[in-house]
This record gives sequence, C-alpha cells and structure tokens, in this order.
Amino acid sequence: MSRTARWTRRNQELAERGLRRAVRTLTPTGPTTGVLDGREVIVACSNDYLGLAADPQVQAAARGGGATGSRLISGSRPAHRALEEALEDWLGRPALLFNSGYQANLAVLSTLPEAGDVVASDALNHASLIDGLRLSRATRRIVPHADPDAVGDADYLVLEGLYSMDGDVPPLTRYPEAPLRIVDEAHALGVLGPEGRGASAAAGLVPDVFVGTFGKAGGSAGAFVSGPAELIDLLTSRGRSFIFTTALPEPVAHMALAGLTRLRTADDRRERLAANVRRLRDGLAELGWQALGDHHIVPIVVGDGAMDLAARLLDGGVFAPGIRPPTVPAGQERLRLTVSSEHTEAQIDRILEVLGPC
Amino acid sequence: MSRTARWTRRNQELAERGLRRAVRTLTPTGPTTGVLDGREVIVACSNDYLGLAADPQVQAAARGGGATGSRLISGSRPAHRALEEALEDWLGRPALLFNSGYQANLAVLSTLPEAGDVVASDALNHASLIDGLRLSRATRRIVPHADPDAVGDADYLVLEGLYSMDGDVPPLTRYPEAPLRIVDEAHALGVLGPEGRGASAAAGLVPDVFVGTFGKAGGSAGAFVSGPAELIDLLTSRGRSFIFTTALPEPVAHMALAGLTRLRTADDRRERLAANVRRLRDGLAELGWQALGDHHIVPIVVGDGAMDLAARLLDGGVFAPGIRPPTVPAGQERLRLTVSSEHTEAQIDRILEVLGPC
Repeated sequence: MSRTARWTRRNQELAERGLRRAVRTLTPTGPTTGVLDGREVIVACSNDYLGLAADPQVQAAARGGGATGSRLISGSRPAHRALEEALEDWLGRPALLFNSGYQANLAVLSTLPEAGDVVASDALNHASLIDGLRLSRATRRIVPHADPDAVGDADYLVLEGLYSMDGDVPPLTRYPEAPLRIVDEAHALGVLGPEGRGASAAAGLVPDVFVGTFGKAGGSAGAFVSGPAELIDLLTSRGRSFIFTTALPEPVAHMALAGLTRLRTADDRRERLAANVRRLRDGLAELGWQALGDHHIVPIVVGDGAMDLAARLLDGGVFAPGIRPPTVPAGQERLRLTVSSEHTEAQIDRILEVLGPC
Repeated sequence: MSRTARWTRRNQELAERGLRRAVRTLTPTGPTTGVLDGREVIVACSNDYLGLAADPQVQAAARGGGATGSRLISGSRPAHRALEEALEDWLGRPALLFNSGYQANLAVLSTLPEAGDVVASDALNHASLIDGLRLSRATRRIVPHADPDAVGDADYLVLEGLYSMDGDVPPLTRYPEAPLRIVDEAHALGVLGPEGRGASAAAGLVPDVFVGTFGKAGGSAGAFVSGPAELIDLLTSRGRSFIFTTALPEPVAHMALAGLTRLRTADDRRERLAANVRRLRDGLAELGWQALGDHHIVPIVVGDGAMDLAARLLDGGVFAPGIRPPTVPAGQERLRLTVSSEHTEAQIDRILEVLGPC
C-alpha cells in the first residue's frame, strides 16, 4: 500500500460525492472580463464589486518589499501605520491589520470570548468565524439565520453585514443590544452605507468589533479589525493569528490604502452598481428565477443542478461557478452571481440571455 | 460599567504580568538597517536572511491587482500557476499556494489527520501548527523537543525544519519512518540544503508534506504546501483556510516568483550568511554568552531579563526584541538575534560590542 493511500481514498470519496474541487485559472482582460480555459468570458463571480482590483491607481500603488517578520518583531512598516490611520479616519476608531479576513476572524473569535462566555453565532456565518469559535473555549449557541428573537442572553453576538452565500443583510437594528456585537462587514464594505462603511453603518449602528477586508470591494488584499482602543490592544497582545504571522508586505499595504481612498468617494461606482443590481434582479424575475437577497450578491438556489447550470452558463461565455458543500448545505447548491459597478448593461443582458427562462 | 470593561481588565492583567505588546514601526533604510523611534538601528531580528526583501528585482516584480476572490471561485491567476509551477520545478512535486504559513499549517493539520489518527507533534512546534491541530479531530501526542525516541507509533509526525525560537534543526534522519511526516521548513528554506530547499533536503529527506513560506528568506509574502498530487488535491477540496479566503494578490505572486528565482541560485548569499553566523556565534562565545542552535537564528535565553537586555541593545542602536510568553514559555524569555547575508562584518562586530561581556 502506498504511503498516501489514505489521501487517495478520500479524494475518491469526494469525487464520488461530486465534491472534488479543482482550480481554474482566469486571465483578466478587463474589470469584468477574462479568459478561462481559452475562451473569453464575462466574469459574474468576482468580489471586486467596484472594479478597483483593475484600477490603474490601485495597481500602481504597489511598492516596497516583504515585511521580513511579524508586526511585533521586525515587520511593522510606515505603510501599515498609514493604512491603520486611514481606517481610523474613515471609521472613527483605531484599527489593526491582518493578513486576511480568515486570520482576522480567527483572532477575534479565539481571543475575545473566554471560557464561560456564551457566543450567539448566526447559522450561516462564514467558515472563518466558525473556525475561530472552534478555537475558543466559550460556549457556542448557533442561532437560526437572521433571527434576532433566537439570540437570548449572550455575551457576544456574531453576524455578517451581508451574507456571502445568501446575499441578504440581517435585521441589524432588531438584535438585542446587550451582547458585544462582532460584525464581519467583508461583503458589505465599500458598497453599503455612507462612504461604503458597510451594512451596520447603513443601519445607523457601530458594531463593538468591526471586521473588514481589502480584498473584495477594496480591490487588493488583507483585512482589519476596527473598534475601541482596548480591543485593538487586546488583539495586539493576544491574537495568535496576528502575533504569529509575517505582516502584510508593503506593496499590499500601499495598494489597500489606494483602494480605500478610492472606495470612500466612489459614490458614482456605488450608483452604477445599484443600477446593475436592479437590472439583473428585475431580469431574473421576468425570466422566472427566484434570487435570494436584495443586493450585489445574487444567489439562485437550484439544488443538485447547480453545477450543470454553471456549466451551461460557461458554455454561453458567463463565468459563475456553482456553490456546493461545505460552502453551502447539501441540497442548497446554488448558482451565485455577483454584480460589479463595471458590468455594462449589455453584459448584464447577456448574463440573463444565457441563463434563459427558468 | 463600560461595555468593554472586560477587555480593559484583561489588558491591565497583561500589563501587570509584563505581557502587554505594542507595535513599533521600523522604516527600512537598507537590507539590514532602519529607523526605529527616530534613531538609526542595525536590524538583528529580521527573517529576511538573504536580504531579498530589499532586492530591487524582487520589489520591481510587483504588478497586477487583487485576486477578487478565492482560488476556487474568481481568484486563480496565471501568476499563481506560474509560481506553483516554479515550486514544482524546484522541489520536484506539485504545490498549492496559501496566504500565509499560518493558513497553510491550519489547512494541513485540520485537513489531513482524521478522527482516530495519532499525531505526534514536537513540543516546540509553531503556534500555527498547534492551532491547526486544535482544529483537528485527531489525537494529539506532544513529544519532547527534538526527541525521535519519544514519537512511538503515530500516523503523522509534525516537525519544523529549523525551530524559530530555539534555532536548532531536529535530528531529522533519526525519527521513525512510518508516520506521514509534515515538516514546516519556514525558517530553513532558502538557507539550508541544495538550492536552499531546506533542512530535510540538507539531510537527504523529502517530507510527505512540505510547508514553506515566501515571507522569510524569500523576501516577499505567502506560503505553500508541496507534496504528492493526491495531497494537493485533498487540500484543494477540503482545506478550509485554502477554500474560504481571497487568494494572494497578483503583485505578491509575482514578487514571490522573483524571490524564489533569486533564492535558488543565491549560493553566494548563503556563503556570506554562513560566514556572518560563524562571526556572531564565535564572538558571542568569546564574550561568554551561550546561544542555542547552530544556524542563523541565534537565541540567548536570559529569562526575566530578556526585555531589559533588548532595551539595552536598542539604546546601543541594535534592534532585536526580547521574546516572551506565549511565544516561549515563562522563565525562558530570550533575546533572539537573527543574521542576514547582508550584515557587514562591522555590523556583526557592533552587535557584539553593544551586547558586551555576559
């Protein structure tokens, strides 16, 4: 028996269950187009909601070198401080950078709730929030999605501003006020709220712990936590995924700052995005498709047929992969379209044409 | 009582125990120098062992934009494939990129060992390996550091090629062969072995699972896992910290490739590094200091006085922070010097002069 027979067996099991995944390389040819497997496609699955990943100013900002170490040893650079100060200027409270939203959520959930604390966590929270909670000694209470009445007494409440696989904003103003609120604004940032400050800001709220990323509407990479100074101090001293990792390289910090600067004043792009969302959602309704949510993430739950539907779209030149377990529950496989401000009306219409009537 | 009183209390407790941490910004002025708190310092704590973070070719390689999504949705780019192919060319087996060594180790440890597996893990393994194991359902067996006889029967054996806080290479050839071996080569990569392929390669071994990073001797950021194709397939399908995170931005992938290309042929730098290590270690011995290990990480265990010693070095213009819990156990606080190929002999001598006799 080969040394790695156990891995081979697991891959075979995944293949039999239709859960084997493979990477497909996309060569961008514009903010909303690319070449995939040799053919030109409209990209309808990017998180680059404002087209800033393709923005010449953001790309040109990349300069400098690797950080050479963690922030607490050799790796803190003026570019990191400048970005943290820009976040404080934008959101009104101090911020701490992380290498990814995944690492930010791990630090938040594994550091803040302590043994004996009860953490109410929405059933659809992102894998990184789940993994962070698994690293915590606190008591988990998984509450039904978007159901404020199910929270009850808790020390912490964990939500996303806009759910990445369901496209909805939870009823943020209706949740109990007592629990310290942790909100991952990854998919809302740059799109919702004044100056793109997210779903909580759009609802007039400031979460106790605000998690955001630069890799979606921000167009670059990395993430941050924003909140009271004592939160930032505690994560700095105790956040394992902050302490034990090489800091963001300087080029990414510079790009993130350029992207953030663009994003704050990008009301024109936010208006174009809203118009594109309306055009796509209205078109889907006319064709008889039922999409979840109200915003720029447009999921269509089709169950087993999701991968076939995605393949049919790709045949028609539209790139939007099917989403399957473990990202979504079995039976709730879905096509997940995302909209960019930079999609043209013709591209939106082409997506609808390829999709055709339900 | 303030909403955040619990965080304030914990920060106070950390401060009382001398464990409160703060970020200090370093402005690089050269490969081994910078400005910290307004003064010129020799940097003696960087992981940039070959000076490639400051290399103009590596820095100039940064181009392109953010990845716009995970590798499995919209975020796979030709730059990622090119880097994975270069790794395969270098190490002889396929590779998969990760955003950080932290995320790579989380994926490896949380995905590979299954319930019922026994994982033998060296007592000094890095926090990311520990956190990965905490996310696994396998049975952990913590074995004394660098002790092959303590491993016993196990399904997996987890080691580092060169220990980051003790500076030593474990006796890699003396461990049992049966367990699938996972080796994090982060601090050995680029420095040890032919073409800088790490501590295992230097010992004539190929680990079943090889974890490496680009953010240390590579001079940029990000990480990878290298191994049999079935390993890469399994991590692609099931590695949560691979699936649920935005891919490395294009500029980092390009920089990492440029750094890897330089690193493979950098025997001149490896020779200068070895000479610098000898000069520092010989000098320390003459001054009566006992340093751990034999390589470019030069830890001096001083216990409680580590932070004071680090402060004294900084007064003398040498930047090397003290290392304290939770990074190392209480009572084993240490000064951790690191050597670069780009340190001049005068800089090494200055470090010794400031340190003075033990």
